Amino acid sequence: MDLTAARDRARALDDADPIAFARDRFVVPDGLVYLDGNSLGAMPRAVPDVVQDVVARQWGRDLIASWNTNDWWSAPARVGALVARLVGAAEGEVLVADSTSVNLFKVLVAAARLRPDRRVLVIEPGNFPADLYIADSVADLLGLQLRRVDPGELSTVLDDDVAVVTYAHVDYRTGRAHDMDAITSAVQAAGALMVWDLSHSAGAMPVDLGASGADFAVGCTYKYLNGGPGAPAYVMAARRHHGAMESPLAGWTGHARPFAMEGSYEPATGIDRMRCGTPPMVSLLTLEAALSAFDGLSMTDVREKSVSLTRLFLDLSDDVLAPLGFTVATPRVDDERGSQVSLRHPDAYGVVQALIARGVVGDYREPDVVRLGFAPLYVRHVDVVAAVEQIAAVIATGEQSDPQYAVRLAVT
Amino acid sequence: MDLTAARDRARALDDADPIAFARDRFVVPDGLVYLDGNSLGAMPRAVPDVVQDVVARQWGRDLIASWNTNDWWSAPARVGALVARLVGAAEGEVLVADSTSVNLFKVLVAAARLRPDRRVLVIEPGNFPADLYIADSVADLLGLQLRRVDPGELSTVLDDDVAVVTYAHVDYRTGRAHDMDAITSAVQAAGALMVWDLSHSAGAMPVDLGASGADFAVGCTYKYLNGGPGAPAYVMAARRHHGAMESPLAGWTGHARPFAMEGSYEPATGIDRMRCGTPPMVSLLTLEAALSAFDGLSMTDVREKSVSLTRLFLDLSDDVLAPLGFTVATPRVDDERGSQVSLRHPDAYGVVQALIARGVVGDYREPDVVRLGFAPLYVRHVDVVAAVEQIAAVIATGEQSDPQYAVRLAVT
Repeated sequence: MDLTAARDRARALDDADPIAFARDRFVVPDGLVYLDGNSLGAMPRAVPDVVQDVVARQWGRDLIASWNTNDWWSAPARVGALVARLVGAAEGEVLVADSTSVNLFKVLVAAARLRPDRRVLVIEPGNFPADLYIADSVADLLGLQLRRVDPGELSTVLDDDVAVVTYAHVDYRTGRAHDMDAITSAVQAAGALMVWDLSHSAGAMPVDLGASGADFAVGCTYKYLNGGPGAPAYVMAARRHHGAMESPLAGWTGHARPFAMEGSYEPATGIDRMRCGTPPMVSLLTLEAALSAFDGLSMTDVREKSVSLTRLFLDLSDDVLAPLGFTVATPRVDDERGSQVSLRHPDAYGVVQALIARGVVGDYREPDVVRLGFAPLYVRHVDVVAAVEQIAAVIATGEQSDPQYAVRLAVT
Repeated sequence: MDLTAARDRARALDDADPIAFARDRFVVPDGLVYLDGNSLGAMPRAVPDVVQDVVARQWGRDLIASWNTNDWWSAPARVGALVARLVGAAEGEVLVADSTSVNLFKVLVAAARLRPDRRVLVIEPGNFPADLYIADSVADLLGLQLRRVDPGELSTVLDDDVAVVTYAHVDYRTGRAHDMDAITSAVQAAGALMVWDLSHSAGAMPVDLGASGADFAVGCTYKYLNGGPGAPAYVMAARRHHGAMESPLAGWTGHARPFAMEGSYEPATGIDRMRCGTPPMVSLLTLEAALSAFDGLSMTDVREKSVSLTRLFLDLSDDVLAPLGFTVATPRVDDERGSQVSLRHPDAYGVVQALIARGVVGDYREPDVVRLGFAPLYVRHVDVVAAVEQIAAVIATGEQSDPQYAVRLAVT
């Protein structure tokens, strides 16, 4: 397929897109092809008015009373319920609080304590580094052995010494999606507990924690959930664990009677026991407003759009980008990928910077990855074609080797 | 002093107040006497415009680039430097991140690891429950013995088995201020490390962590620092510990090379190693804007105003409220109290609710405390007199026993 044919095809696909209307729920700057929603989602239009209300009225005017009158107190569970619908969790199983790393710390410790006779914690070697570091720290604190095991090798290590297995649902670097049902079943058949990190799947594809029987999950809300920079993360615990799970971050807001100010800790019933300190309300209520962008959307439609976008990109990569030195790091089988495509190229860093200058925003990941996320709520098929066109133009002009693009910034 | 004389005196004190101008930096609703700034500080006027800029421009328009172009990445250290000036810490010793409880968890574990041959963790029995619960959890994880020791008894337990002592600088319930210098010296003379919780002192009185030689400190920013509901907390670590301290919440943003995405953890140099996950930027930048309310203010002037307010309240309590059944729980000696006064009364709960209905906002603390905070940046002497007047009016009418006030709400 050449680019001219691709443009026609993209327009036809966009015209037939059943969730095309969702793009109007976001601010997408004019002329920008934003393919970094897997790192920071675009801003939903509902946000600015809500944030203004939160500061000017709820905080500025109502002050401390807002914990009751504006129901700040139950916001972590209330916003958690909005997330629960997107990840297939039941009512009362999801809480929004803290960061993904802090929540992973809570659930790894809590899960390991539920398997006190087992000494091994398993994680994927290619997991997002934050998860690796937290798992390392948990293993160190609890005296566990941390084993880094690829999902393909998992069956060879699952024995009665494995307490907990934690994997990312979709790999942050390659976009590979794991089979949540099969892995969860295998882990539980061995008597261990399964903890999923949904950071790169929730909001871009259907996730059904309930159907898979997952024990715990965590995830971030500022990627495909569009909650704003550093928006609070979520933690899911299956109801069957609520009575016995113990968070190591036993905070006052997770107490059974937080305002009794008792001298000893008695955890709240339910997911509230995963609360710790006072939640950052301005960020939390920003997230609540942002999640309204999913109202009425079918996650099946969202997934179909996502697959259509990534498939179009993969087809064009083969025809247009492969001859220019790009290889595809993301699985070709639709069921095995999330909503991103990662290309490898020796000059990946310079390519990404030159693309940004051309108004196509993706990101670079070590060591040679051009990572492009296709957030299905606001990315169109015509954006896919524009991205391929601009990547080809970068290589044609050699911009990727220009020092203004090729020399590294401190933060990318 | 009767109330008429008190009104004249209050007006004179307000006219002579060198920091009276600071009140104009806040939104204080008309007619409200807001004495709960020790729970949620009033909103600085600088906030709404900044928050709108953060969401509409920085997030909405600049998107992922903001981590560089709007310098989101260094915000935890940058806002930490603003807090450092208010608590007497040196450049690079304070980081804003997470909640107070999470930060206390980090520093208690880090401090205990710096004294690996010692097995005792000491905390005040009357500490804010969150701190008690976190200390309990840390002791459990590390196999330490937790001892609850009043500062007055501290000398009797300080031996070479005490690893860490953690106290609140000002007691949340009584408003008692501890002698930071003397306690820190005694703890360190015994070879232990001192961790302060500044939640109820920072922003209302001078705090000089550097002069006291404190090892670590944590504190919340939504009380006298006016950062907004649940604004991120701070953590201070003396520079001498930066090389050896290890946070148990080893997150990717605290890595020496966070974007190298390395498989193993190497902590950043300096206070950045106390970073964990991605910070909640909307709440964090709200806090940054809010801290501008302290620009150009002398903390000596702030403390003088605070003492003047609480002293006036104590004088009036003796003359007007003692005959009505109120007793004072807060120390009379100026140096021994923070910026709040706590009264005890058998019907304290109903008194607080009836006061709120009369436009005087304080809060109730178990079991019988009417807690009134005098945030010196925006509370006036005339507010002190109005509060006493309304408390007396509540008792005169018996409103505190009216079921609409006396029956407990779920959250107070």
